[in-house]
Amino acid sequence: MDYESFFKSQIAGLKREGRYRVFADLERRVGEFPVASFHPEEGPPKDVTVWCSNDYLGMGQHPVVIGSMVDSLHKCGAGAGGTRNISGTNHYHVLLEKELADLHGQEAALLFTSGYISNEATLSTLPRLLPNCVVFSDALNHNSMIEGIRHSGAEKHIFRHNDVEHLDALLSRYPKNQPKLVAFESVYSMDGDIAPIKELCDVADKHGAMTYLDEVHAVGMYGQRGAGVAEREGVMDRLTVIEGTLGKAFGVMGGYITGSTALVDCVRSFAPSFIFTTSLAPVLAAGALASVMFLKEHNEIRIRHQERAATLKRRLIQAGLPVMQSASHIVPLLVGDPVMCKQASDDLLNIHNIYVQPINYPTVPRGTERLRLTPTPYHDDRKMDALVEALLSVWKNLELKRAA
Amino acid sequence: MDYESFFKSQIAGLKREGRYRVFADLERRVGEFPVASFHPEEGPPKDVTVWCSNDYLGMGQHPVVIGSMVDSLHKCGAGAGGTRNISGTNHYHVLLEKELADLHGQEAALLFTSGYISNEATLSTLPRLLPNCVVFSDALNHNSMIEGIRHSGAEKHIFRHNDVEHLDALLSRYPKNQPKLVAFESVYSMDGDIAPIKELCDVADKHGAMTYLDEVHAVGMYGQRGAGVAEREGVMDRLTVIEGTLGKAFGVMGGYITGSTALVDCVRSFAPSFIFTTSLAPVLAAGALASVMFLKEHNEIRIRHQERAATLKRRLIQAGLPVMQSASHIVPLLVGDPVMCKQASDDLLNIHNIYVQPINYPTVPRGTERLRLTPTPYHDDRKMDALVEALLSVWKNLELKRAA
Repeated sequence: MDYESFFKSQIAGLKREGRYRVFADLERRVGEFPVASFHPEEGPPKDVTVWCSNDYLGMGQHPVVIGSMVDSLHKCGAGAGGTRNISGTNHYHVLLEKELADLHGQEAALLFTSGYISNEATLSTLPRLLPNCVVFSDALNHNSMIEGIRHSGAEKHIFRHNDVEHLDALLSRYPKNQPKLVAFESVYSMDGDIAPIKELCDVADKHGAMTYLDEVHAVGMYGQRGAGVAEREGVMDRLTVIEGTLGKAFGVMGGYITGSTALVDCVRSFAPSFIFTTSLAPVLAAGALASVMFLKEHNEIRIRHQERAATLKRRLIQAGLPVMQSASHIVPLLVGDPVMCKQASDDLLNIHNIYVQPINYPTVPRGTERLRLTPTPYHDDRKMDALVEALLSVWKNLELKRAA
Repeated sequence: MDYESFFKSQIAGLKREGRYRVFADLERRVGEFPVASFHPEEGPPKDVTVWCSNDYLGMGQHPVVIGSMVDSLHKCGAGAGGTRNISGTNHYHVLLEKELADLHGQEAALLFTSGYISNEATLSTLPRLLPNCVVFSDALNHNSMIEGIRHSGAEKHIFRHNDVEHLDALLSRYPKNQPKLVAFESVYSMDGDIAPIKELCDVADKHGAMTYLDEVHAVGMYGQRGAGVAEREGVMDRLTVIEGTLGKAFGVMGGYITGSTALVDCVRSFAPSFIFTTSLAPVLAAGALASVMFLKEHNEIRIRHQERAATLKRRLIQAGLPVMQSASHIVPLLVGDPVMCKQASDDLLNIHNIYVQPINYPTVPRGTERLRLTPTPYHDDRKMDALVEALLSVWKNLELKRAA
């Protein structure tokens, strides 16, 4: 077997399909976000405006976050030096878990090295522990949820995206006393739509099912204290598990779940991908702690964020650009073809110094390839002027479809 | 279904078996490693000497690492703000990947959020890509390798630990041109023994199999430049993939693989747990880059480390304590009972201010419960005096078995 030729042929296949991904090499600069230095493969670096970051509120450069991290580095050093069980629990972990439990109004919280792992670990462990547990998963759930459910080995049903009636029909096939778990997200990251959380919880309750809510694209950004959409809608206490990330609006890295003490203790005690891994670096926990505490107290940042997103949508619509329907801060622009989507992104970067990554299959369905814009509180009117002008130019040059 | 009662009963079961884990809440202090502040559940914090950290060389507090991280925080901020593909590739990632490829003498490297994920992502993806690939896995491989292989869905055989002849016999059942992957570690973390890498590669070559070597407990610590045991034995070019961590001897957090450009590009392009996760925080990449570069040039730290481990083993043997056979820097002390192991650890912590975590099932087989000591270059003779004295006292009080 010639492995090397095989791997080369796989890559060649991706290139033929126009799906080969080239990572943009960026250097973020504190105080200038969303401007960053872009390092092209050849030639000197140049300044670009980033329009696709998930550092949704710019907290990754906020002085309270940086300050807390620098302090913790000088005090406690870099890594944790072990798994949580073997010398790797740091006081920052303990404090942050208390803070996150409080944020979501739950009894306990547990940190993971990423949001991906928090979903994988929890959704693989809970259904494995519960005898004959059946999992009901929204059709557009994130890959980390899908993989977690798959790893659990449990029976699984997929309900149509945000379709409460379909979920109801699927749940009703099982006796009420059989263990069940309904897993869904609040904000879906590629479309920006929002789940009917209360209605999903009502149906789950009716059938005796636990509920698992992924709020990674909402924590920090929705609700009076930034606990997410469930806080905004007053339904946090309806969820069995609320999962979140420290790597998006909180600006750092890592993931977590919150829930009852006993449930969280089970995941802590039985999930291999939690147990057998070096714990989150204390410096990250320190930064996240500062960020969560700060955002709890600063709702004006969320108001400004929503205003920026609404303004961008309005301006793009006025310009006749094909904005996709979105109920959140995420602003997708439809292109509908992978090669054109990549070309539009390349032209924005090379000609207009605007960086927005093309989103192609498998991240979104074929035919819905798009540019996904994420305006932050730091994207001011001048930056929006430049963006709209650049998009109009690219749309014209590439003869892309405008709004219907 | 009363979920809450179910979860409580699971936890009660663990407690009955003596397997319930309590995480020691520590505050590491730069400049005083391996001394840390221990926060008990009640009462004020107190100083303890940590004897079970995987920050094997104390790089987590080294000025070049801390300095590089502080600089990167002031310059680039906290988190990456996205997946590697969507705005989350930072210049530090690019530089660190080049540095790691060079360290291991391979064409390319790829960063992951943890060593766990580097194993899971690579070992689930390569066998899934290769048609009819069969995986051969050492019996004592780490959970992350086991889970990765399981997630691949490939046919799997387990060969007896470090048993070259058994591997040979298993491989010879398959035609030479059928894709095969042999996965093993260099240093096994709980016993401290070392794999016969050259002999395993010889057998793999004979049968046309790829080789995957996990060097997480060796990188930074073995070989003239700290590339691991494969470097020390002059066989780095025999491995298809070398996997390592940034969270142990390099003192930070994160994992990586190195291999051919095409192979690494396949993992980069096809592994969901790489693609769909926020990338390693730039501050961690900056710290790891400084650590790897520093340790490449400072072999005297490795010499000191090995001297400390040899000295500790000699002193424990002289004191009649049951040191388990180990060919590496890891020094396991046999207790052989989970309750006694936990009690010994508690007494060391509460009476002697020495922290060494009990290692019980499922991390090690039942009946081989142990204390696992990891002397670093910072564990000086005085600290060893205190340790030996404390162990003798605990061994006497608890009437634990001494060396045969």
